[in-house]
Amino acid sequence: MNYIEQLQDLLSHEQVTTNDVLREQHGRDESYHEPHLPDVVVYPKSVEEVSAVLAFANAQLIPVVPFGLGTSLEGHVIPTKGGISLDLSLMNAVLEVRSEDFLVKVQPGVTRSQLNKELKKHGMFFSVDPGADATLGGMAATNASGTTSVRYGIMRDQVRDLEVVLANGDIIHTGGLAAKSSSGYHLNGLMIGSEGTLGVITELTLRVYGIPEKIVAGRATFNTVQEAVNSVVALKQAGIPMARIELVDKNSIEQVNHASGTSFIEMPTLFLEFHGNESGLQSDVVFATELLNDNGCTGLAFEQDERARNQLWELRHNLAYTYIHSAPGKRLMSTDVVVPINSLPEAIENSRKKIESMNINAGIVGHVGDGNYHILLMVDMNDPHDILQAKELNEHVVEFALSLGGTCTGEHGVGSGKAKYQRLEHGLAYDWMKQIKQIFDPNNIMNPGKIFID
Amino acid sequence: MNYIEQLQDLLSHEQVTTNDVLREQHGRDESYHEPHLPDVVVYPKSVEEVSAVLAFANAQLIPVVPFGLGTSLEGHVIPTKGGISLDLSLMNAVLEVRSEDFLVKVQPGVTRSQLNKELKKHGMFFSVDPGADATLGGMAATNASGTTSVRYGIMRDQVRDLEVVLANGDIIHTGGLAAKSSSGYHLNGLMIGSEGTLGVITELTLRVYGIPEKIVAGRATFNTVQEAVNSVVALKQAGIPMARIELVDKNSIEQVNHASGTSFIEMPTLFLEFHGNESGLQSDVVFATELLNDNGCTGLAFEQDERARNQLWELRHNLAYTYIHSAPGKRLMSTDVVVPINSLPEAIENSRKKIESMNINAGIVGHVGDGNYHILLMVDMNDPHDILQAKELNEHVVEFALSLGGTCTGEHGVGSGKAKYQRLEHGLAYDWMKQIKQIFDPNNIMNPGKIFID
Repeated sequence: MNYIEQLQDLLSHEQVTTNDVLREQHGRDESYHEPHLPDVVVYPKSVEEVSAVLAFANAQLIPVVPFGLGTSLEGHVIPTKGGISLDLSLMNAVLEVRSEDFLVKVQPGVTRSQLNKELKKHGMFFSVDPGADATLGGMAATNASGTTSVRYGIMRDQVRDLEVVLANGDIIHTGGLAAKSSSGYHLNGLMIGSEGTLGVITELTLRVYGIPEKIVAGRATFNTVQEAVNSVVALKQAGIPMARIELVDKNSIEQVNHASGTSFIEMPTLFLEFHGNESGLQSDVVFATELLNDNGCTGLAFEQDERARNQLWELRHNLAYTYIHSAPGKRLMSTDVVVPINSLPEAIENSRKKIESMNINAGIVGHVGDGNYHILLMVDMNDPHDILQAKELNEHVVEFALSLGGTCTGEHGVGSGKAKYQRLEHGLAYDWMKQIKQIFDPNNIMNPGKIFID
Repeated sequence: MNYIEQLQDLLSHEQVTTNDVLREQHGRDESYHEPHLPDVVVYPKSVEEVSAVLAFANAQLIPVVPFGLGTSLEGHVIPTKGGISLDLSLMNAVLEVRSEDFLVKVQPGVTRSQLNKELKKHGMFFSVDPGADATLGGMAATNASGTTSVRYGIMRDQVRDLEVVLANGDIIHTGGLAAKSSSGYHLNGLMIGSEGTLGVITELTLRVYGIPEKIVAGRATFNTVQEAVNSVVALKQAGIPMARIELVDKNSIEQVNHASGTSFIEMPTLFLEFHGNESGLQSDVVFATELLNDNGCTGLAFEQDERARNQLWELRHNLAYTYIHSAPGKRLMSTDVVVPINSLPEAIENSRKKIESMNINAGIVGHVGDGNYHILLMVDMNDPHDILQAKELNEHVVEFALSLGGTCTGEHGVGSGKAKYQRLEHGLAYDWMKQIKQIFDPNNIMNPGKIFID
């Protein structure tokens, strides 16, 4: 009996499949990274089943790659060494809403939009917003963030507790329900961002927020990206508690207009959002307007209506897909560095010059309030020159960010794409990360080839 | 040549002392935990010296206990197995203020008040406020928090990067200057709260904040602790962004009045603070006043003047010392649980009943906006009955908090006092924490006997 038949005995026949279409779906993510098929796709329905599959795989030395919805951007879910793609989409229940405690307990296959739909009934929302409608398990695994992190924080700030299954089948909890704790080592923080290399997340307890009394969104246009970015630094330094500050460059606004039939002015633009009580928010908007105008803002439009606001952010979120659809047959490459906020103008100017000098068609967008920006470009995977150029640009951008004390990835994670920069970014600490990996996963079955280069 | 002479050769004679007074100072903290003398006190001046001492101690199997100012409350700095007390007070420079990046780089011996004095020149402040004027190294080691954490977060939320020396002498950095990162394992979070059991912190890069445009403090009195706590739940659930919400019970107000000559109304009281822009804050205060009155507030007094505000918080901070001075010869015991916010009234009521049934003289205070409260009592260490009662109360309070999904320590840390609750709180995860300890410190020289029961 081969190992796939053994798995079918362990769970049930319909939870274990070698169907070609399903294997193909589980062999790629949304990025330019080269696909690789798993041997088999397994759909567990409970933590006990996840534990049984891991203990089995660990004994048989079979790689296991957790899979949510496949929206990763650095090859995280690609089973580069074959084995089992562990699809958690059947574990997709919102288990408990503790509205008085501002907590919610969910299974890992619940998506961001599914959770927010449920929370809206309680006047609450989940803050982390990476654009893609990812699963919460995947978002915790990559320590995702996005447009609202400048105000509400990143995934690591929202997770109170995880249930995690380790390679040997052990089921542990990494936290609790308390708003803070100084008890024991911070396994919560360690598991978040570990990208399935230490364990499989089977349950999450998350912090949620009340929907703010008042929300105002806006668009501010500038003659140059540099003026837009200088404004961001000014807004941050003034201490205005912006809920969102997104840069969308001219190239990307053109893409949006082309794809969505909008007629936004085709100039570098900041998409902004303010949250607060009625009067405090009004003060913030007035002060922000002043600062934007002082920094060369050529036009400012506000949206108070929920529908118009939602449309604005939908356009922002669909930007990556807009690039993808504009270049059929090509694959998306996105850089993802963060630099200290005061170095942001310098870093973006450096990136822009590099793009121009290489004569590449690329857009710059980003969560600039965190010092995080992305260069989006479409790569023809059949053209070695195209691939080489994309890699050269990525390397240039990463090395410049690291020279400023920044990071090679602000939110997409390491996967296989950023593994080569880990030593440069972390130095000797990288060896200690490897030792931690070694205790939790001595047989290297947990998403092998990710974060660490074997 | 004995090991102390070898240390004198390694550093210099005046940095290595066996003076009895100094050893006695390094043999205790501010708690009821039994003192124990170190063999020697060592004062390193640089990361290289810390590295040399650790590599030496590791080779010779000598325990090393990092020491800041000795304000710990669970016996953290007590060298229960002798060895070296590594006093970091000579490494007390504010190395760099990057005001445009809202970052500051400090050595571990810098105290909270020393840093805030420096930051005030730049219109900024460091938010974590545990009451004691602790060192920042110690605050990171215990993941300290305090009065302002309800708004600005705990120590783990402020640390961007640590330089840490490991048992073998390795010097690593656990983070960087970026506001967020998904790169590699979160060693930053792991080191914070590890209480010197994994390494010695030799440098910290911390997030700081602009001083708010407007600050208002206030005192709200209630007939019962339960009404006060119900108000806290109401304020939190209304989403008012309180900067501080502190409970001080009747017993403790009496202590304050007695010790400081104030004439506060001797009733259960909430000390409150609001931060914001002028108009937003005004709205918050109006809304909060309404909610407080709805929940049985019998009197409300606001202080807008900086001096009056500072006095209010000084009184709050000195509360533990007030108890200590009121009972000469006795030692302070403080519980430190956190429960989910909605369970806070139930938990405090349970604690209050237990105190009454045991006929103990104790005060209840706490950072109730986080669901964190302390029972303060003075213990006669020569009276076995007193000690037994204190232990019984602590155990009762911890077990009740854990039964609600809470934690045995919100901010004081584990030390030796809470080690016995680690298994109960963390279950199987505790074994994995032990394994992490084992890789970083295979010879168990780093603050042995803390967090883990040997």
